[in-house]
Amino acid sequence: MLKLPTDVFYNRIEKMQGVVKEQGLDAVIIASNETETANVRYFTDYSPKFETAAILIPAESEALLLSGPEGGALLELHSRLKEYRKLLEFRESSDPEYPDIEQHDFNKVFSEINGGKPVKKLGLIGTNIMTVQVYEGILKACNGAELVKCDDLLRNMRMIKTTEELELMKRASEIAQRGFDWALGRIKPGMTEFEVEGLLVQSVMMEGAEGTGFQIWCVSGPNTNQAIGRSTHRVIERNEIVQVTMGAAYEGYVGTFGRPFSFGKPSDKALELLKIGLDANKITHQMLREGINAGTVANEVHGYIRKTGFGDYIVYGPCHGTGMMECEYPFIESTSDYILKKGMTFAVDTFLGGKDFGMRYEDAVAITHDGEMQLSRPQQEIIIL
Amino acid sequence: MLKLPTDVFYNRIEKMQGVVKEQGLDAVIIASNETETANVRYFTDYSPKFETAAILIPAESEALLLSGPEGGALLELHSRLKEYRKLLEFRESSDPEYPDIEQHDFNKVFSEINGGKPVKKLGLIGTNIMTVQVYEGILKACNGAELVKCDDLLRNMRMIKTTEELELMKRASEIAQRGFDWALGRIKPGMTEFEVEGLLVQSVMMEGAEGTGFQIWCVSGPNTNQAIGRSTHRVIERNEIVQVTMGAAYEGYVGTFGRPFSFGKPSDKALELLKIGLDANKITHQMLREGINAGTVANEVHGYIRKTGFGDYIVYGPCHGTGMMECEYPFIESTSDYILKKGMTFAVDTFLGGKDFGMRYEDAVAITHDGEMQLSRPQQEIIIL
Repeated sequence: MLKLPTDVFYNRIEKMQGVVKEQGLDAVIIASNETETANVRYFTDYSPKFETAAILIPAESEALLLSGPEGGALLELHSRLKEYRKLLEFRESSDPEYPDIEQHDFNKVFSEINGGKPVKKLGLIGTNIMTVQVYEGILKACNGAELVKCDDLLRNMRMIKTTEELELMKRASEIAQRGFDWALGRIKPGMTEFEVEGLLVQSVMMEGAEGTGFQIWCVSGPNTNQAIGRSTHRVIERNEIVQVTMGAAYEGYVGTFGRPFSFGKPSDKALELLKIGLDANKITHQMLREGINAGTVANEVHGYIRKTGFGDYIVYGPCHGTGMMECEYPFIESTSDYILKKGMTFAVDTFLGGKDFGMRYEDAVAITHDGEMQLSRPQQEIIIL
Repeated sequence: MLKLPTDVFYNRIEKMQGVVKEQGLDAVIIASNETETANVRYFTDYSPKFETAAILIPAESEALLLSGPEGGALLELHSRLKEYRKLLEFRESSDPEYPDIEQHDFNKVFSEINGGKPVKKLGLIGTNIMTVQVYEGILKACNGAELVKCDDLLRNMRMIKTTEELELMKRASEIAQRGFDWALGRIKPGMTEFEVEGLLVQSVMMEGAEGTGFQIWCVSGPNTNQAIGRSTHRVIERNEIVQVTMGAAYEGYVGTFGRPFSFGKPSDKALELLKIGLDANKITHQMLREGINAGTVANEVHGYIRKTGFGDYIVYGPCHGTGMMECEYPFIESTSDYILKKGMTFAVDTFLGGKDFGMRYEDAVAITHDGEMQLSRPQQEIIIL
């Protein structure tokens, strides 16, 4: 088993503390919820569940993990950070009252940091995840303080992966690939999309995953046109595209993996789409390397797809960042204008979807000096069973 | 297959529209996210994924489903409501820019409702789920409007289940029970908690579930003390408590199910806890009926547990509401003071957890005139394999 040592988490906190000081902030508060656990897990190894959570990193004193009243035992088992506070603002969405559990509040929390000095300038990270309840609690306790959104501070820290992080991502991607290979021999026409999803979850858990990294799906026929999909009760048929978008999580890092396949040949147009998707996927893999402009990659790939007549099937750019979040900064879009750096990690996510159907090939890679390090094996041939 | 007809969703919207008028509101906006999809699904059958969502129900014009830019195809497949708008505020947590997708904004949205009349009083439901990003978009577009939190309006609508809802809940609970029965024959000492979780997911998907309703878990030995748990890589041993907390979702309704068991006899103290937990569970089931005060139930059950010396293992009350959310209003706590009504649905959630270990028996029931209707079969004997 691979596991990050506890000092990695303390080093990350210390590094963020340096950034907080440098930015002239008194503290930064970083939010997570059950769907998107990465922000808090990055610093603590704790992933909130039912409840939400945040980490408060002050300029001058110890960091505090803030959680809801009920997750105490979960937190004590997983958090590398021993200081935590239970606040009602982070309780689960059904708003329990917890008459039997002692609670803290935001006023007390802020009085405990920086030797009791009032917070004048507070950074917020993850306001796209933070609940209104938590935000109002902060506003009330930091009455009059300047609030600054600063997601970029954390993104900059997380964008280039360390060797240890790459190892965990490789493990996760390999689990996803092995899980898919195992499941592929068991998926049959006549099964529902939900049944296939169940098989896929079992496959990665059996292979050592801690979860799927996101709610995975299997879609078929017309349902394959969903960029973000959900399995249904639909029965999988022969001669149509079946699409699996799955992942495996390992120690907080996600391996993301997508494959289209069919039982027997699909329609000519569907087959053409699978071929063009696979070519676009290969072009993307070939272009990725340190020093290339992200926009150049996107425009080259989109240019190829447009020439084939499938331009209308483009929904977004050919890659998105990946790591502790299945999808994280940075993106490779036609409008992107930055240079790829060694250690950045992307999901090469070739999704094409029209009114009739769609398909996705997806594998994670890390940028290296002269190309890409593949975390799972990109597909070379169309899969027809 | 059971499926609610589309007019059920329109009737729910119409009913809420009546409440909106009655309360003197111009509109209400109701939020959901991927973890807690119930609020939006109740009115639309759509469950957001990666992105968040909301439904805007105006006093005088048609309801609008608000979603992120990428979920279009998912939404068109599932939503019973054909009117929807894509707003950047609901995008997924990685903040993609979507240069290739046309977007709406909150100003346009609010100008489209109630014949363009400005919004002066807006109800908010689900601020414990709504993101700061969405909230700020609303604040800006409804500059100067009075915002009123009114979660109780929706809770009151959802608290008493209809016959059709009870049928869906029964189906979900039965799937969970069958899934557990199937998996129990396959769980062996030497498997990791994660492997068992994988088996359980597969079991309910195979039995016809659309998902597990929440992130389920299997914990063992000392890990069983978590009220909210996560499976780990821990290998399950003989002579210790193994705890499964699982569920099955069916058409948006959750069947929740929990069982402790052991391979061979656990320690005397663990065995005693299992016995007291089972007795407390039976006492709870026997007390539930229309007309009884919720606080009476909680105090009777807690009183029994305290007499046995396990009072310190109490974390919360003996039941919580259940339905589209695994845990929803109302709760049965020692401080509760309301009368149980026919059609209310509860998870009898007998959880006891100490420093050393814990256990949970959990089944869903509906309140009837002279007792409870059991949606899965409560456990009668301690399970030792």
